[in-house]
Amino acid sequence: MTEPLLSWRAGAIRKAILGFVEAVTTRGPHFVPPAERIAVFDNDGTLWCEQPVQAQVAFAQARLKHLVRTNPGLADRAPYKAFLSHDLTAIKALGKRGVFEVAFAVHAGMTVDNFIRSAKDWLAEARHPRFDRAYTDLVYQPQLELLDYLRAHEFEIWIVSGGGSDFIRAFAETSYGIPPERVIGSTVRTQVLDTNGHLDLFKLPHLESFDDREVKTETIGRTIGRRPILAFGNSDGDLSMLRYTLSGPGKRLALLLHHDDADREVAYDRDFVLSPLAEALDHAELFGLKRVSMSRDWATVFPAVSEAAPVKRIRRRGF
Amino acid sequence: MTEPLLSWRAGAIRKAILGFVEAVTTRGPHFVPPAERIAVFDNDGTLWCEQPVQAQVAFAQARLKHLVRTNPGLADRAPYKAFLSHDLTAIKALGKRGVFEVAFAVHAGMTVDNFIRSAKDWLAEARHPRFDRAYTDLVYQPQLELLDYLRAHEFEIWIVSGGGSDFIRAFAETSYGIPPERVIGSTVRTQVLDTNGHLDLFKLPHLESFDDREVKTETIGRTIGRRPILAFGNSDGDLSMLRYTLSGPGKRLALLLHHDDADREVAYDRDFVLSPLAEALDHAELFGLKRVSMSRDWATVFPAVSEAAPVKRIRRRGF
Repeated sequence: MTEPLLSWRAGAIRKAILGFVEAVTTRGPHFVPPAERIAVFDNDGTLWCEQPVQAQVAFAQARLKHLVRTNPGLADRAPYKAFLSHDLTAIKALGKRGVFEVAFAVHAGMTVDNFIRSAKDWLAEARHPRFDRAYTDLVYQPQLELLDYLRAHEFEIWIVSGGGSDFIRAFAETSYGIPPERVIGSTVRTQVLDTNGHLDLFKLPHLESFDDREVKTETIGRTIGRRPILAFGNSDGDLSMLRYTLSGPGKRLALLLHHDDADREVAYDRDFVLSPLAEALDHAELFGLKRVSMSRDWATVFPAVSEAAPVKRIRRRGF
Repeated sequence: MTEPLLSWRAGAIRKAILGFVEAVTTRGPHFVPPAERIAVFDNDGTLWCEQPVQAQVAFAQARLKHLVRTNPGLADRAPYKAFLSHDLTAIKALGKRGVFEVAFAVHAGMTVDNFIRSAKDWLAEARHPRFDRAYTDLVYQPQLELLDYLRAHEFEIWIVSGGGSDFIRAFAETSYGIPPERVIGSTVRTQVLDTNGHLDLFKLPHLESFDDREVKTETIGRTIGRRPILAFGNSDGDLSMLRYTLSGPGKRLALLLHHDDADREVAYDRDFVLSPLAEALDHAELFGLKRVSMSRDWATVFPAVSEAAPVKRIRRRGF
């Protein structure tokens, strides 16, 4: 293996990560068997950029533009109007859960399989409004290296996100090497329907689980059935799972990404209503969380993108 | 590898299993990449004996006996009275969902970690009333061989059960080689509580998901995020996931265990109210399910148990 964590600057954080992984993977007092090396990562704002809004919100906007063609009445109705006109103030006024509820509900009636195809198609074409890159080129390079490093040390890596599971599953394997069954996210209710003897799962408009705050910990218990030994988040929505991770026996590591880099990304914390960071930041030391400073700890933020290989235009399969 | 499936008698079923696995694992028109080789198994009655009642019901009886010591009033109250007096007729009158609701609720207030320890302790001591063996010695030998055979061909094996996830997690790794995160089952709601800065998950008395019938398919979608290519069940509760498995493209296999062996186990199907098999049996051909006859297809039912190694008595940690 080449030198790990090349995009992480030397300092207390890089040292803490390397020290933790060495301790739990070396035979000795802190050794943890591979099967118990569970690592959980938040997605939006932890593994990729979530500003000015989470990618899933932009995806829902595109879906709404499609729906309004056959149902023009939607265009003047709240909250769809805010989404369609990209009125960020009105969108943010809905609050985190409210925004995601709309973002999830607009795909009701699709099969899960078609939803994932549609999300893949959108991700292949969409460009981020500020960085003018594909959203999947706005994953964080240091985190890709951390995932590789953990995998090389036989960690089992999970995403535990407030975003929709199926949306994340559309790119997590390609972008992060994380397979669908290691993605925990918010879900809408689904229904099995029989069409001429063929069974499919259809999305309903009702929120089933909004995977935020304490619910993240509860879904970790339900789905993984083991307490993680490493957790990485960036907002108060991650605080419960970070503290749950630290509450087990033996060595543990909980990391909190602080977006303090206005030059290379966006500087924000307590005022971002779609995913505020305040309590976890104010009490990081009390809770034993290690604050990762984007400006101080990351030598690079985004991966290099070859300009010689522009985003491939693919046939839209429709929403 | 030695000859696989030694406890499966030669015949159409054994041939179908071998043929299916060969087809999907050999480069050619039916090849399926390892990551997509998802196999789902029901637990009670498919991987181990569920007669006269599912083991989890017996575990709940033991828990109730413990609770009644500090709360004697429970002993005369329905439905606890039926459980405490082992009144099978009264227990069965509650129906499948009703019985499991009681079986889950009696552990409310415990942490998930303590529940699993308690289940392990009980499983280490409890004896099956008819076979006088540990419950974990009533797993089906042919199924252990099938799991091994599928694993050797890079299948990813999941349990999808109406039983409680945490109860199954207490023995699935040891008995089947299936880790906790590959167990999907019924769940009660849980709550994260902070005790002196230490976060734990506590079980609540409320059913969250009863993983039966269509719900099995919905939780497969939510948790695995891929459609299985092989499914194995033994009751109408499994019919939806069996048919969902067969509804995908390419080669698929759906197996239905028929308990028709009164000599070696118990002969039952449509009249077992705790897990009836009627619709799936009556329409097996229409739905494309392969009926596995215990009496015809299995040379052995249970594994050999060494009498020289009696069940180890361990210290009870209490319920």
